[in-house]
Amino acid sequence: MSNRIQIFDTTLRDGEQVPGCQLSTDEKIVVARKLEELGVDVIEAGFPISSPGDFLSVVELSKAVNVGVCALTRSKKEDIDVAAEALHHAKRGRIHTGIGSSDVHIKTKFNSTREKVLEQAVWATGYAKAKGYEVEFFAEDAGRADLAFLAKLVESVIAAGADVVNIPDTTGYCLPHLYGKRIAYLFEHVKNIHKATISVHCHNDLGLATANTIAGLMNGARQAEVTINGIGERAGNTSLEEVAMIIQTHKDLEMTTGINSKKLYELSTLVSEMMRMPVQPNKAIVGANAFAHSSGIHQDGFLKNSENYEIINPADVGVPSSSIILTARSGRAALKHRLELLGYQPSKPELDQLYDHFLIVADEKKNVVDDDLITLVANTPLLVQK
Amino acid sequence: MSNRIQIFDTTLRDGEQVPGCQLSTDEKIVVARKLEELGVDVIEAGFPISSPGDFLSVVELSKAVNVGVCALTRSKKEDIDVAAEALHHAKRGRIHTGIGSSDVHIKTKFNSTREKVLEQAVWATGYAKAKGYEVEFFAEDAGRADLAFLAKLVESVIAAGADVVNIPDTTGYCLPHLYGKRIAYLFEHVKNIHKATISVHCHNDLGLATANTIAGLMNGARQAEVTINGIGERAGNTSLEEVAMIIQTHKDLEMTTGINSKKLYELSTLVSEMMRMPVQPNKAIVGANAFAHSSGIHQDGFLKNSENYEIINPADVGVPSSSIILTARSGRAALKHRLELLGYQPSKPELDQLYDHFLIVADEKKNVVDDDLITLVANTPLLVQK
Repeated sequence: MSNRIQIFDTTLRDGEQVPGCQLSTDEKIVVARKLEELGVDVIEAGFPISSPGDFLSVVELSKAVNVGVCALTRSKKEDIDVAAEALHHAKRGRIHTGIGSSDVHIKTKFNSTREKVLEQAVWATGYAKAKGYEVEFFAEDAGRADLAFLAKLVESVIAAGADVVNIPDTTGYCLPHLYGKRIAYLFEHVKNIHKATISVHCHNDLGLATANTIAGLMNGARQAEVTINGIGERAGNTSLEEVAMIIQTHKDLEMTTGINSKKLYELSTLVSEMMRMPVQPNKAIVGANAFAHSSGIHQDGFLKNSENYEIINPADVGVPSSSIILTARSGRAALKHRLELLGYQPSKPELDQLYDHFLIVADEKKNVVDDDLITLVANTPLLVQK
Repeated sequence: MSNRIQIFDTTLRDGEQVPGCQLSTDEKIVVARKLEELGVDVIEAGFPISSPGDFLSVVELSKAVNVGVCALTRSKKEDIDVAAEALHHAKRGRIHTGIGSSDVHIKTKFNSTREKVLEQAVWATGYAKAKGYEVEFFAEDAGRADLAFLAKLVESVIAAGADVVNIPDTTGYCLPHLYGKRIAYLFEHVKNIHKATISVHCHNDLGLATANTIAGLMNGARQAEVTINGIGERAGNTSLEEVAMIIQTHKDLEMTTGINSKKLYELSTLVSEMMRMPVQPNKAIVGANAFAHSSGIHQDGFLKNSENYEIINPADVGVPSSSIILTARSGRAALKHRLELLGYQPSKPELDQLYDHFLIVADEKKNVVDDDLITLVANTPLLVQK
């Protein structure tokens, strides 16, 4: 089995359907071109039957990029017909069709039975395949589906021509070890599983989307469905940047992706601004504070050797540099570092004296800036600027 | 072994040291009282030697609450002396002392050796213990420490009197299965481990803090160190709300906490506002969109049975209700639902007609509000308000 993980980006479908995140076709094209530069393998471009605007976006994205373009459908003839039409210009088009696989979805969403759902899944896969595109089948709510039924469903849609089978944890319910076991079970019980790529699509309702995705990949899945900044329905989808950097940082996983990590920060900012979807400062990889060090213990250790507190070089994700921010929790090492950047070279007793004054200022202020330091120094006659 | 997990909240220490998050003593008391109401077991109140303001906060918090109050120190006499003084009024005081345990910290941060670090750790634990408080020892950067050395260190500090031993993944480096194995290794190799509580303290640099915390608890740790909204150095700490709701949702873990989940949302909002630290809309449990449903497929399924797309009842975390937001990705079910809330009862053909008009409006707008719906209905003469 190859260890190259396919990155399937659904920022423009599962991300874009979020309240307030809707983009125009022109905006979607800007993001899609950046995703192509970033190195994703497939872009899910929309759900063509959902609205005329979304149909148009899939048409125009298909023309605009050379990577795979995917269109979402339900397991319905009209959805698949419209998706096939929208993908006409794609260099590598993919129809993403599927149906609920958990008993709660089968009974209360479709008022149906496992048998009927299986039949419809096989029919839809075959119908989509006959359109001449790649076919990805999603077994919605697979995270809560009966495992034996799920295995039967996966085997049946692979037999019907599915190139990729997506095992979504639609509600973000699974714990990583259990999601990993689901994927492992499928590899053990689905005879034809090696004829398809197994895909993982996780939601973050319990804060576990990234861990579940990695657990799925460790158990044999070879496609990860992700979004920039982890945007998506409710608490969002798995973050592309987290999965990419885990694989890049943990060589022990023996996996690779096509992602150029140096473009992650730029794309995170673009998507956040365009979709008006703020990234919290403490967001992994791309948050404003992800490489900021503020406590004295951390600043001192970081200044001696950045590896003491950083496992990723910020330049590797396109962030210009780490920052040393002065607050009341900063120590002498950080104060000295920032004074040196301003051109001062305090001696040990000078630093001690400055530090005592600094703490008084810092207890009052959230963040001590250069002007405050210059004032501090001005009140300490011993110092000579060098 | 009891399955009651101790919740150690460090919002006011590891969270508060973040750039811009600094609080006054009065503000810290407001948050601490709310944490006590929420049901945390221990509040880490500050790092007393770091500044006079932080010392005062630990003093005043010790007076203000009845739960455990913890003060951070390095493995230094002056730190421990000052912390002990600050905790004087605590009903249940705890000194949290420790030192780097990984070779990178030992060599490049302390310019020391494993032997000297071990000696200092044992000395500091004993010195803190003699002050008459609970003692928690942190083995900083334990996530990257040599396992045999870490086991020796843990055994030694327990022998020296540590009541709790904290195994932090300081840099957020670990993968969940490997962090879990570290904790399991300690339970297998540290003879006196059952004399102390093992604590997990994870950082979110790779988006794995919550999963690592759960992996640690599954392997025997019985204290989780967390913050509200996952705030903390760099990409932050483990989110209290995620750990609490995983334990509450997954009865299969057979764990309990003292957290009253209905107070989570209120406290998340308080901390976010007071620390000026925004929570992204797609944050698990407490984000603005955590219980919002926007795509047609999801809205239709949700309206038939909320369990189709929600694993947590929003009322269980103090969020008033789920929301059905109308965008171009919404379907007829959601439009009908919102029209009914406005007092309309469209027939099937009326709904079809309205839906076509709705999609035109929705392709132009991010979010279709009630006024837009009233205009839509006004342009559809068949409808009669009931």
